[in-house]
Amino acid sequence: MPNPTAAMLVIGDEILSGRTRDANMHYLAKELTNFGIDLKEVRVVSDDADAITEAVKTLSSAYDHLFTSGGIGPTHDDITADNVARAFGKNIDVRDDARAILQAHYDRQGIELNKARLRMARIPEGATLIDNPISAAPGFTLENVHVMAGVPKIFETMLASILPTLTGGAPILSQSLAIMRGEGDIAGPVRDLSERYSDLSFGSYPFQRNGVFGAQVVIRGSDGARVDAAMSELCKAFPE
Amino acid sequence: MPNPTAAMLVIGDEILSGRTRDANMHYLAKELTNFGIDLKEVRVVSDDADAITEAVKTLSSAYDHLFTSGGIGPTHDDITADNVARAFGKNIDVRDDARAILQAHYDRQGIELNKARLRMARIPEGATLIDNPISAAPGFTLENVHVMAGVPKIFETMLASILPTLTGGAPILSQSLAIMRGEGDIAGPVRDLSERYSDLSFGSYPFQRNGVFGAQVVIRGSDGARVDAAMSELCKAFPE
Repeated sequence: MPNPTAAMLVIGDEILSGRTRDANMHYLAKELTNFGIDLKEVRVVSDDADAITEAVKTLSSAYDHLFTSGGIGPTHDDITADNVARAFGKNIDVRDDARAILQAHYDRQGIELNKARLRMARIPEGATLIDNPISAAPGFTLENVHVMAGVPKIFETMLASILPTLTGGAPILSQSLAIMRGEGDIAGPVRDLSERYSDLSFGSYPFQRNGVFGAQVVIRGSDGARVDAAMSELCKAFPE
Repeated sequence: MPNPTAAMLVIGDEILSGRTRDANMHYLAKELTNFGIDLKEVRVVSDDADAITEAVKTLSSAYDHLFTSGGIGPTHDDITADNVARAFGKNIDVRDDARAILQAHYDRQGIELNKARLRMARIPEGATLIDNPISAAPGFTLENVHVMAGVPKIFETMLASILPTLTGGAPILSQSLAIMRGEGDIAGPVRDLSERYSDLSFGSYPFQRNGVFGAQVVIRGSDGARVDAAMSELCKAFPE
């Protein structure tokens, strides 16, 4: 059975202006690969209502899961929750369970749960909350869309609480071999191998080490014995 | 006049599997902002012919420019050039000028220009070559699509040679203020300010410093005097 598929949607002007370097894409990619969910596509859009809504509609219907990052804080540019609700035609309002979580958090700190902070309790109808042990404001899952914070530590914690609730497939195993030849010398043999092992995926990633060209050849698949067999053949073709 | 718009398409299984962390998106975002081109959307897709073709069609028609990164090497998984050609219904084949560049490069190194390396001379009809002083294999511009290598040093060099040939708009100026209050205290005043300065864009980016919550508020716009005025008001609202 093929693995479940996923897409990611990163939301935020600060990524597209180059002010902030996104860290969540790389983290999610590694975690999903280990869990056996295939990340097929990532999109980054600005804090624009239509752009978010359209991307949520397209990606949530094309893949088994959609993970979003960013835009769920208390400020005017945090419009992710509203537009995820809109994409599914759901109402959104302050929800009692989310408000209670925020109230308890701010009471402990002696901080007022003001109007801006209360925005973070706006949850679409039918959504399940995602716990945020760091700063309380919850994420949520609506249908197959998992809405998480953009701050990396919070994103990572939220992902850790969702993943065990999902169905993973076979984790993708990979082996790699660094070959100190130009990629152009490696390409032919790797292509032949990839045709005979069509159930595996082959990648070739060029690098330079002390001025000499080499390439890292990576063989990936869910069947460990097949990956082993292909790697043995590759090693024979390029003995060091 | 509004600034020209752009999208980026990152191509490669290695990014989506988490094996490689993309560096080109953040670099391009900063460079385009400085040049006065607004990066509106980024997509990351795998080494899949249909995924690449569809993304090129959609993004090149929605924005003034599309910059691509990755998939133009000599190996079997390098299929970007073919699918950019396909997106525009253009033929693609080994082109004499590109072959001559590669031939000279490999002759100097005493390396054979074999069949795999010759793949890198496949250029769609009507495209303009983009110089690659590092490893010779050229990128190209076809219509409004700029096809560049994924290796960051080469991507950066190629971008440096294209940018001066494009028309930039007004560079986006930004000023930021770190405010040591929770984002929830900042949200209300920043929203008011953003409504009165609707020609500017306001972002708020939370952080923690020594256990204390703060937020970096960023004001962006192309009119320096307006950015100054809004920042003065922000400083008055949050005197330290």
